[in-house]
Amino acid sequence: MYLVKVYVTLKKGILDPQGVTIRGALEALDYKNVREVRTGKYMELELDAPTAEAAREEAAEMARRLLANPVIEDYRLEVEEARA
Amino acid sequence: MYLVKVYVTLKKGILDPQGVTIRGALEALDYKNVREVRTGKYMELELDAPTAEAAREEAAEMARRLLANPVIEDYRLEVEEARA
Repeated sequence: MYLVKVYVTLKKGILDPQGVTIRGALEALDYKNVREVRTGKYMELELDAPTAEAAREEAAEMARRLLANPVIEDYRLEVEEARA
Repeated sequence: MYLVKVYVTLKKGILDPQGVTIRGALEALDYKNVREVRTGKYMELELDAPTAEAAREEAAEMARRLLANPVIEDYRLEVEEARA
């Protein structure tokens, strides 16, 4: 079994209103030194797959089809072996 | 300037209905080998701070006060030096 960590972030240049809101909230809490906040999503998948490479390929397909919106988002994967 | 990556995940044992929904959607797309999906949040902060250690401490305080809910969530930080 493999643990696949999926990081989904907005592409450069895409507006991130949630990040702007968090930055404003931090500023209201007196954190004046935060220049920018960008938000994203994080997912952990537990996958049955024969090899780490197979797990990565399958997770990449899932990311493209469902987990990320490839028009506005990028994704990054990390694959670890997990105890079954 | 430092780039702080903040990973917020639900504590073990906390129900994750969003993860359950994603798992169901993956199954409907014929990915039958996904045992579990856990979701989380990911944020990148650009911080002005004198040292990496100061950036980490300040980001940890932000995580405890605003970015994560310590009752149900854990957070993890990575600090990188960024071009100013």
